[in-house]
Amino acid sequence: MATIMFGLHKADGKCIYQQIYKEIKDRILDGVLQPNEKLPSKRMLASQLGVSVNSVTNAYEQLLAEGYIYTMERKGYYVERITPFVTDDKSRLYDLPTDLKEAEVTKEGWLSLSHMTSDVSSFPFTEWLKCQDRAIKNHLDELSEIPHPQGPYLVRKTIANLIESSRGIICEPEQIVIGAGTQSLISNLMNIPRANNTVAIEDPGYSRFYRMLKNMGMDVHPIPLDEDGIDIHKVESSKSDIVLVTPSHQFPTGKIMPISRRIELLNWAVKSDHRYIIEDDYDSEFKYKTDNIPSLQSLDRNRRVIYTGTFSKTMLPGLRISYMVLPPDLLRLYRGLYSDLIQGSNTLSLYTLHYFIESGDYARHIKKMNHLYESKRTVLINHLLQRFGNQVVVEDTSAGLHFLVRFHTDKRYQTIEQQARWEKLEIYTMKRFMLSKTATKKGCIELILGFANISEENIPEAVERLYGIIN
Amino acid sequence: MATIMFGLHKADGKCIYQQIYKEIKDRILDGVLQPNEKLPSKRMLASQLGVSVNSVTNAYEQLLAEGYIYTMERKGYYVERITPFVTDDKSRLYDLPTDLKEAEVTKEGWLSLSHMTSDVSSFPFTEWLKCQDRAIKNHLDELSEIPHPQGPYLVRKTIANLIESSRGIICEPEQIVIGAGTQSLISNLMNIPRANNTVAIEDPGYSRFYRMLKNMGMDVHPIPLDEDGIDIHKVESSKSDIVLVTPSHQFPTGKIMPISRRIELLNWAVKSDHRYIIEDDYDSEFKYKTDNIPSLQSLDRNRRVIYTGTFSKTMLPGLRISYMVLPPDLLRLYRGLYSDLIQGSNTLSLYTLHYFIESGDYARHIKKMNHLYESKRTVLINHLLQRFGNQVVVEDTSAGLHFLVRFHTDKRYQTIEQQARWEKLEIYTMKRFMLSKTATKKGCIELILGFANISEENIPEAVERLYGIIN
Repeated sequence: MATIMFGLHKADGKCIYQQIYKEIKDRILDGVLQPNEKLPSKRMLASQLGVSVNSVTNAYEQLLAEGYIYTMERKGYYVERITPFVTDDKSRLYDLPTDLKEAEVTKEGWLSLSHMTSDVSSFPFTEWLKCQDRAIKNHLDELSEIPHPQGPYLVRKTIANLIESSRGIICEPEQIVIGAGTQSLISNLMNIPRANNTVAIEDPGYSRFYRMLKNMGMDVHPIPLDEDGIDIHKVESSKSDIVLVTPSHQFPTGKIMPISRRIELLNWAVKSDHRYIIEDDYDSEFKYKTDNIPSLQSLDRNRRVIYTGTFSKTMLPGLRISYMVLPPDLLRLYRGLYSDLIQGSNTLSLYTLHYFIESGDYARHIKKMNHLYESKRTVLINHLLQRFGNQVVVEDTSAGLHFLVRFHTDKRYQTIEQQARWEKLEIYTMKRFMLSKTATKKGCIELILGFANISEENIPEAVERLYGIIN
Repeated sequence: MATIMFGLHKADGKCIYQQIYKEIKDRILDGVLQPNEKLPSKRMLASQLGVSVNSVTNAYEQLLAEGYIYTMERKGYYVERITPFVTDDKSRLYDLPTDLKEAEVTKEGWLSLSHMTSDVSSFPFTEWLKCQDRAIKNHLDELSEIPHPQGPYLVRKTIANLIESSRGIICEPEQIVIGAGTQSLISNLMNIPRANNTVAIEDPGYSRFYRMLKNMGMDVHPIPLDEDGIDIHKVESSKSDIVLVTPSHQFPTGKIMPISRRIELLNWAVKSDHRYIIEDDYDSEFKYKTDNIPSLQSLDRNRRVIYTGTFSKTMLPGLRISYMVLPPDLLRLYRGLYSDLIQGSNTLSLYTLHYFIESGDYARHIKKMNHLYESKRTVLINHLLQRFGNQVVVEDTSAGLHFLVRFHTDKRYQTIEQQARWEKLEIYTMKRFMLSKTATKKGCIELILGFANISEENIPEAVERLYGIIN
């Protein structure tokens, strides 16, 4: 029988049994205690160490559970034969390589003309939290369960009604797939096996999608825009079966695709059974001066449009609630592949959203934000025109949460981006959205300016900083 | 100049300008109004229709924005040449194919012994909502922004501290990637290009992962378990570079991988620079009778373990907050690929979780749930033993939220599943988790019984229903 002697720190914060466990474990791993060696009986060890039998029992049970020792009935406890580690280095501590360290980011003193934000200061938290209370009260059971792969039916039904009235989308709740972002939804969609892996995408366009599709091994063709939007002839000659467009408010140029180009695109799709159009309707809820532009899906007579929408712009980007509407044929394929998928949006937020829409709070919020955004947009444009005069051209499509601005300057994009950091102004240049390396116009740079998350009183200061950056 | 005459329903709910817009739009699409035809001046049409000039202006502006008409300065408005639809069918209404319709699911009268739930009735909503208030108050700005691809640094730091103390994980916040579920995290990880697409997975095992990896085109090898867990020799001969294991509580059998097998697995990994072990630590927080089993990652001396954890079991599955800890080399590759990825967990929930952990509410919740679950588990096992006697064998590993039970019966899995639906008892059979079609033992069926979401007082009734199903 093994003799085990070690001191215990009884005043130590660590429980006695954990100390015993650790001492024995270390002896086994170090080979001090040999395989099949018998351990002292619990009673004996307890008396040797001057502790309760209970403490030894707990230590033995833990060692047993982890496989350091085994027991033979009525005979006692024995040391297991432990495979040795092939490496001798016991140290687990190391410094994270410098290139992987994250610099501390401070937004102190920064102003943002980013297109990626929404105005959180006007978010109706009180109403939202009331809806959340109702969601907790009424859907407790659903919170304890793994959500449906497409999201809760009730919430899909609410979204179906919403987009029918606001965007003319005709669909059943069955066709809606909720997800924690358009990115992951489109990524899942694209994983459905297809004979042809070629995808056409607007250029300039949404670089996140471009890189995502590239990462997925797709053959992605950036298609240049003409004045009406994506060039259909070039889509055709790219031999793509899928085209990704933003017809309501082209990202990032802001152009609205006119009805003729829309019909041409729909006509392109019906030429082959494998063709589909993904309509990313990311900020169509915001339209100033005229009514909202009807969705492309609402014109589709052949079920070739996959409509995607999000609550990131209308509500908060941090909500992570997006959805897509699948034509029946694709829905069937999707379900075949993803019956096991756990839907990613927070269930409580989804039911909260349901009540938020149902109560009319959502419609009121959109209406209010439309006014606020329109006002900020006008103030920003006016300040730009005043400060820059002939040096600036604003592509003034009165829609969405950003617009394109062209400045006459000999500075290069890199310089602009560098100086923006110095001036603490968050801006994004067209360089980010040029998917193929098209030659940039000399003596001219383009910025995508968003106005969602800047207050009206900060606009003059932001424009002043911008002036310093450009000039 | 075109003459346009139509009646207006002035008492109609629809605005006058929308009626004018629609009438003109339909005439353009139908070819009644010809390309380049001049529209009546706003003043003239207004007087013809007996409406205000404003209404006509709004209608013309909308038609202009959508590209139905164009304008020549000081000359007026003209009809655009609209591409005709290649299909004549104007109908957008259709019935959803019957196979795609979802049947209404009612849980009325059902009892659940599912392993996929958590006990929502004991969830500390009051404390959670207080933490949410703090999150709203302190992190408003972060809510308006697109989240960091790995999740907010502050939250990653909190998780890093938590798992260091609870699971012995040594890592920097930089190494943590937060996501809306282990599925999507592992899916992203697996998309990192590798020379070898072969993956080993425990069999029986987590069928969702198995099918996900298959869908991704991976070469997935289900590896049978021996009494200590995954068979290392078979992992070796499968030529896999990645192996996915659940060492703390094998899913679904519940076995704990003993220390020797753990070391063998770690030794397997160091044999080649490309080998990694994914440790899915899905429910290790719940351990009864002994302390928690240390994680595999805590034994790893060579940074070959990718640790994944979730708050689905400890909190609510509907939260959709999971995370993985990447070794530095993988982190570098991951960042290269996913700098554009928008993290999927709800930002507000993440900051709420931060405060929930920081305040000690999380630790208190786990402690309370450990007691509650242990008690339910004991009651369920006792009732099973009492009711089934010799007919049942309980694989009684005191960990997690489910256990494996073996019943002697000649019934087949299909019959059992059918009868469970009749009896309104949610149960899952081993059939679901057998990844390769191994022959099932004759005269014996195995169930995975969960106890998280059944109340103690309902356990006798659930066991009674189970008795009816099995016999």
